[in-house]
Amino acid sequence: MATTFPRPMRADARRNRARVIEAAEALLAKHGMSATMRDVARAAQVGLGTVYRHFATKEELYQAIARERVLRLLDAAHSAAEADDAGSAFFDFFTLAVVESTGEKALVDALVSAGLNPKAATSGLYRELEDATELLLYRAQAASAVRDDVARPELLALITSTCIAADRQQWNPELRDRVLAVIFDGLRRR
Amino acid sequence: MATTFPRPMRADARRNRARVIEAAEALLAKHGMSATMRDVARAAQVGLGTVYRHFATKEELYQAIARERVLRLLDAAHSAAEADDAGSAFFDFFTLAVVESTGEKALVDALVSAGLNPKAATSGLYRELEDATELLLYRAQAASAVRDDVARPELLALITSTCIAADRQQWNPELRDRVLAVIFDGLRRR
Repeated sequence: MATTFPRPMRADARRNRARVIEAAEALLAKHGMSATMRDVARAAQVGLGTVYRHFATKEELYQAIARERVLRLLDAAHSAAEADDAGSAFFDFFTLAVVESTGEKALVDALVSAGLNPKAATSGLYRELEDATELLLYRAQAASAVRDDVARPELLALITSTCIAADRQQWNPELRDRVLAVIFDGLRRR
Repeated sequence: MATTFPRPMRADARRNRARVIEAAEALLAKHGMSATMRDVARAAQVGLGTVYRHFATKEELYQAIARERVLRLLDAAHSAAEADDAGSAFFDFFTLAVVESTGEKALVDALVSAGLNPKAATSGLYRELEDATELLLYRAQAASAVRDDVARPELLALITSTCIAADRQQWNPELRDRVLAVIFDGLRRR
C-alpha cells in the first residue's frame, strides 16, 4: 500500500490561502461573526470554491486566523532577536504585540461561539511566543536596557494586560503610547 | 393626597442588607451563578424572607453587589485624599483597586446573563470614582511623588488594564506586586 505524503502547497495556492485569512480577519474585526464565506471570498477576490478548498468550515477559518496572528508575532520576535539594538528590539516588540492585539476579543468570541476552545488552535505556539519574548528580555537586560530584576512572569503579565485592555477598550494610538511610555520607563534600567 | 417619603432604613435592616450583599458576593466569586437565594440567606445567616425583603430578585442582588464594590473603592479614594502622605496614598489606592478587582468578571458575566447592562448599575459611580482617582494623582504630583507628565487617561488605562488582567488571569499576590512594582517605578518622578 502506497503511503501518501502531504504535498507542499503550490505558491499560488499559498498566496490564495493567505489572502483568504487576511480578508477574513479584517471582516471579523469590522463586522464580527456576521460575515459569510461568500463575503470572505469577495473581499479576498477569489472564488468561493477557493475559500472552501482551503477551509471546509468557517470554524477552520477562524482557527487559521488565530494561528496566523500568533505566527505573525512569533516571526517578529525571531527577527527582533537578531537585531543589533537589543533594547529597541525589546520595546518595539512589546509595542507591536499591543498593536496586533486589536481584534483579539472578536476572534476569541467567534471561536467560543463556534463551540471551539480558543486556546486549542494556538496553545503550542503561545508557549513558543512566550519563550521568544523571554529571550528578547534577556538580550535587553544583557545590553543594560532593561532592569535585571524583571523576570518572565511579570513581563508576560504586563504585555497581556496591556494587550487585553487596548483591544477591549479600543485605545487610540496616542493613549497606547502614553500607557506604554509609563511601563517602559518602569522597565528601563535606571 | 399625602406624599410618602422613603423612610430611612433601621440600623439592623442596614446591617442585614450589608450581610446579604457580602455573602452573595463571596458565593458568586466562589461558585459563579449557581448559588440560589436560599444559599445566600444561609451564608448570610438571615432568613430567606429577609433576603427577599431587600432584593426582590437575584438580578437586583447582583446590581447591589456591583454598586457596593464601586462604593467600597470610592470610600477608599475619599479617605486616601485626606491622607498626609499623598504619594503612598496614591500607590496604595492603585494597589487596592487591583486587589478588589477579583471577581469582577464573574459579576459582569452574572449581570449579562441576567439580561442586564453591567454598566447601568454603576455608571454614575464610575465617573465619580475616576474623578476621585484623578484627585489622588494631582495630590501625588503636587507632593513630587508622581511624574508631572502623567494624566488621567493613561492612569485610568493603566489601572483598568491591571485590574482586568489580575482578575481574569488570577494573579497571585507575588505576581501582582511584581507587576505593580514596574508600573509604579514608571509613574514615579525621577
